[in-house]
Amino acid sequence: MDKVGLFTFTVEPYLTDFRGQVTLAMLGNYLIHAASNHAACRGFGFDDMTENHTAWVLSRLAIEMQDYPRSGASVSLYTWIEGAGKLFTSRCFEFVDGKGKTFGYARSVWAAIDIRTRRPTLLDVEELNRYIVERPCPIATPKKIPPVEAQVNGIPYTVKYSDLDINGHLNSIKYIEHLLDLFDLERFKQKQIERFEIAYLSEGRYGMELSLHSMEVSSDHYRMAICNDGKAICRAEVVWK
Amino acid sequence: MDKVGLFTFTVEPYLTDFRGQVTLAMLGNYLIHAASNHAACRGFGFDDMTENHTAWVLSRLAIEMQDYPRSGASVSLYTWIEGAGKLFTSRCFEFVDGKGKTFGYARSVWAAIDIRTRRPTLLDVEELNRYIVERPCPIATPKKIPPVEAQVNGIPYTVKYSDLDINGHLNSIKYIEHLLDLFDLERFKQKQIERFEIAYLSEGRYGMELSLHSMEVSSDHYRMAICNDGKAICRAEVVWK
Repeated sequence: MDKVGLFTFTVEPYLTDFRGQVTLAMLGNYLIHAASNHAACRGFGFDDMTENHTAWVLSRLAIEMQDYPRSGASVSLYTWIEGAGKLFTSRCFEFVDGKGKTFGYARSVWAAIDIRTRRPTLLDVEELNRYIVERPCPIATPKKIPPVEAQVNGIPYTVKYSDLDINGHLNSIKYIEHLLDLFDLERFKQKQIERFEIAYLSEGRYGMELSLHSMEVSSDHYRMAICNDGKAICRAEVVWK
Repeated sequence: MDKVGLFTFTVEPYLTDFRGQVTLAMLGNYLIHAASNHAACRGFGFDDMTENHTAWVLSRLAIEMQDYPRSGASVSLYTWIEGAGKLFTSRCFEFVDGKGKTFGYARSVWAAIDIRTRRPTLLDVEELNRYIVERPCPIATPKKIPPVEAQVNGIPYTVKYSDLDINGHLNSIKYIEHLLDLFDLERFKQKQIERFEIAYLSEGRYGMELSLHSMEVSSDHYRMAICNDGKAICRAEVVWK
């Protein structure tokens, strides 16, 4: 089995934004779909993990886009494992358009948790090492994101039915969608997101009362957070161009 | 060109709900996608309408589902025109699963508006009549839905970036998503939506402050509304089983 996985998507017109381009949140869905299937085909997917009472959880994600495909466009998404440690494995992605031109990269960090305790568990490093491949992913690795939630008021949000994933938790991609909804429409009309980075700190649950925070730390550079009871459940950083 | 259009979809795992089944909102996306493409292939699609400074707007929609396909399932969606009048045309849909079994129907009513005035405009009945076909669609036609907004308090909601369609208005499907989010999670765990019906009354815009209303009129039968400034922009009716 190839170490590098290739998944193709078509940008569905009903899943684009008001500009007719694919949303960053939908690109996130593509990433997770590719990661899940790449893992499943190589014996460490959702079902294999469940058998061992474990599950993958996304810990960090960074996406850099030079361009956003529009309605009807074909997207090829390559994914591969870059490294594996005892607690975390890193997976990279490359977005290629219908003409073979690369238009974006992403980096992700995953942990495995014990389903019963929801605590981190040790990875099968030897098994994961079989699939590690050296392939360029020329974007910065996700790093620690400084808190902003104490410095700026939050917008309240309660977790709803449409926010939940198959595990009954706030869907990883919905964190992104709710954060991006904090930006004014004018910004989306004039600019594009060049880099988006998120660190997941804890799981959102149905009915949980959240607050959404955003602060411009320098021109076109934002730090964000989602909190529950004053404690961050994720932090994010967005750079516009 | 065939009068009946056939469109196929695969239920993407990342677009299912916490039960692993396709959401009613996503079925709505499939319907609109099928309707748009069926019209476009027959010379009365989005681009043809834009040339005449007109646009299709969805006026009413009723969906009845016996079953909801799950992640990975294949969905065949048939659509055809049932009738056309001076101001409205009615279009039907049939959902068929991978084994050829019908699991749902839908009915929709569309108007054309002048893009500049946003007022209704006359349809080209002669042209539409060429495509009318008699084919059974054994569900009740959408009817007038009584108001409930004066009898029950609303939940506030402000229209966001992720709510907007390509025209910059509140996406028709987002009306449905926000209404269904009013139901408690326990209901989704125990029951299914048997029939959903919505009447669109006016367009939602970015930043508009809405209120979401829901009232149980008899067991498992709800009437709903979305209002702006006390005036309904849509009314809906939901029957659970």
